[in-house]
Amino acid sequence: MEPSNLNEEQDQNSWALNAWTLLSKLRDQSPLIQCITNFVSMDLMANTLLSAGASPAMIHSIEEIQDFTPHIHALCINVGTLSPAWLPAMREAALVANKAGKPWILDPVAAGASRFRLKACLELVGLNPSVIRGNGSEIIALSKASLGATKGVDSSHESMDAMEAAKSLAQSSGAIVAVSGAVDIITDGHRVVGAHNGVSMMQKITATGCAVTALIAAFIAVDPMHALEATASALSIFGIAGEMGMDMAKGPASLRMHLIDSLYNLDQAAVSSRLKVTSL
Amino acid sequence: MEPSNLNEEQDQNSWALNAWTLLSKLRDQSPLIQCITNFVSMDLMANTLLSAGASPAMIHSIEEIQDFTPHIHALCINVGTLSPAWLPAMREAALVANKAGKPWILDPVAAGASRFRLKACLELVGLNPSVIRGNGSEIIALSKASLGATKGVDSSHESMDAMEAAKSLAQSSGAIVAVSGAVDIITDGHRVVGAHNGVSMMQKITATGCAVTALIAAFIAVDPMHALEATASALSIFGIAGEMGMDMAKGPASLRMHLIDSLYNLDQAAVSSRLKVTSL
Amino acid sequence: MEPSNLNEEQDQNSWALNAWTLLSKLRDQSPLIQCITNFVSMDLMANTLLSAGASPAMIHSIEEIQDFTPHIHALCINVGTLSPAWLPAMREAALVANKAGKPWILDPVAAGASRFRLKACLELVGLNPSVIRGNGSEIIALSKASLGATKGVDSSHESMDAMEAAKSLAQSSGAIVAVSGAVDIITDGHRVVGAHNGVSMMQKITATGCAVTALIAAFIAVDPMHALEATASALSIFGIAGEMGMDMAKGPASLRMHLIDSLYNLDQAAVSSRLKVTSL
Repeated sequence: MEPSNLNEEQDQNSWALNAWTLLSKLRDQSPLIQCITNFVSMDLMANTLLSAGASPAMIHSIEEIQDFTPHIHALCINVGTLSPAWLPAMREAALVANKAGKPWILDPVAAGASRFRLKACLELVGLNPSVIRGNGSEIIALSKASLGATKGVDSSHESMDAMEAAKSLAQSSGAIVAVSGAVDIITDGHRVVGAHNGVSMMQKITATGCAVTALIAAFIAVDPMHALEATASALSIFGIAGEMGMDMAKGPASLRMHLIDSLYNLDQAAVSSRLKVTSL
Repeated sequence: MEPSNLNEEQDQNSWALNAWTLLSKLRDQSPLIQCITNFVSMDLMANTLLSAGASPAMIHSIEEIQDFTPHIHALCINVGTLSPAWLPAMREAALVANKAGKPWILDPVAAGASRFRLKACLELVGLNPSVIRGNGSEIIALSKASLGATKGVDSSHESMDAMEAAKSLAQSSGAIVAVSGAVDIITDGHRVVGAHNGVSMMQKITATGCAVTALIAAFIAVDPMHALEATASALSIFGIAGEMGMDMAKGPASLRMHLIDSLYNLDQAAVSSRLKVTSL
Repeated sequence: MEPSNLNEEQDQNSWALNAWTLLSKLRDQSPLIQCITNFVSMDLMANTLLSAGASPAMIHSIEEIQDFTPHIHALCINVGTLSPAWLPAMREAALVANKAGKPWILDPVAAGASRFRLKACLELVGLNPSVIRGNGSEIIALSKASLGATKGVDSSHESMDAMEAAKSLAQSSGAIVAVSGAVDIITDGHRVVGAHNGVSMMQKITATGCAVTALIAAFIAVDPMHALEATASALSIFGIAGEMGMDMAKGPASLRMHLIDSLYNLDQAAVSSRLKVTSL
């Protein structure tokens, strides 16, 4: 069922218009995004959310969840620098978000790096996240529930290698699953789309994966009923900001700066001309 | 008792000269500033202090306070990513600083976000900080001792809305209270001054509020007897660095870089021509 | 036993060739470097490792050490924001690394700032690190096992003042000891070399010391049998990146960016023409 070129073009226009609409809403509404995240990513994650127009809150104490979490618009849980003391707050925040009808997203960093981490991630997967975003190795580890051949936090798998694992995980968890890579893939277990924007040097900046997960949370906050589209849009917008940043960058550190500046300045023309999402 | 234009100009010159004198002292003396602060802000806070000429030390273990804190020149306590385990060290550091006659400053981040956080902040307010700096929502929450309508870590109030709360908090706590906003207001409970420098994009960079609180600590370290003037000077200097950074910035990330560079390079001519402090 | 000028030049060429060879290996092999480090440094450390070609993993939970640490290529332990809860994981990681035959490196940040910190550092020194890198004050504190006159995290001693302390510490610990300063000194307790690259403004960027310690770990990972040479090479490469960054920088924040970009782009011509290592 290949779409014709005309349909493809219409699809691109439709995806681009939707992504732009969501970004505009995000800038207007400035949703409050609670982030329980790793120490490495906090700075870039908060700055990514601010540049996109959201209001980040890095609040992780279990003592605050009951008072604070009901007021948020979306929750981002990232297990990067996991320790046992943080897990109960992650669980509690997920439960409170669920109860309050607020979407939440899981970033299972290095899911296969240890049994402790894998178990924690699998438990969180069971708490009804709206979206799970990881790299190929992480999604495969979650899908197989095994440590596998992950190498630290960087993926040893292309996103396409994780296609079946992603679909399987989406079906079993009920979450949208996104796999980052040269092409990001996004699936609800049946439908699969690919988001093609971005540049490879983004992998040479720590926490870009974490940051885009938080950006997905912000996009879902403004369109919780269309999590697949919101996820693909956030990945595309971040990728486009990376492409535009790359035009000015001389290396990973200047790319990081220009990416955030570009995200802040992104206009409809850039989204329309650059966004590329396809059915896979 | 409106001052005439001539008096106003003399006042500006006097404020500018004082701010420049304090910055010069800071560069000469390189005061040691202990920061017990949130995870998000550590990088920007340390770099702000270094660029201004101070020597930052992010040391937060209660096991180290008795040995280390007596040797510092000022202490900055910031509750951003608060957890119960950190509170005893914050208390202990404040007490040791008080006993050693060293000024300390409180940044009550998101004071109204939860009962746990509000209680912790109010307890710290009771430990004789020299200065309390927050945004409008935080100062109102502290002054009313109520959770109020705070939205995460970003203020939902203009600084001017918090004028009475700031005066009341200053009177009850004995601290200088500073409220960040389009105009920063600084009060000892009776006298109120406004610091007008800065650009709005600084709010799109995470931890700029935390960073300027630490800068106030450094300014107070070199002039502990004039905490109101030192506070207004630090806020003005940071705002001027932001204005000069803005001349070169293309977005929040490049502003962050240029702000720190400008703080490092700031000269007397820029301070004299740009600083604006008024009586309110 | 002064070498002739000709020998000196041959020495420089030989050092430069070795440093370039190690950097090339690092880029090819992308060694996995586990970092148990302080909160302030995580971002810069991870980005430094990524820019150099390594794969950083900030994993610090004791629950993960047994599963994860055997797979790494080198371990970096940094006590910057030490708290008692982190110490057992540091010990365990060092022991597992030793057992697995993987090199590990210690950064004894502010070793003399408190008895708690000094004791922790001395205990870690006893666990057979391959390399210890600190500033003059830190190395003196470790060597004398006394709090001494350290001022926070910044050194109050030139590296040369710590020459004898470094040799003594190297002899007693069996580690290569590196002391950062205007000239970095590196010793195995007998032989002493000086690495002369770098610019003073690097001290105005927080965590550059931590970052270069992690870079040493990456260099040792690709040449574990020649720890002195790998250490001197890493210090030189980082210093050269700083020099090249300084050509474009306007202050500490832009230097930080350009340093990382330069590290990423570093080529053999720059290494050959700039590297300076001497016998001391």
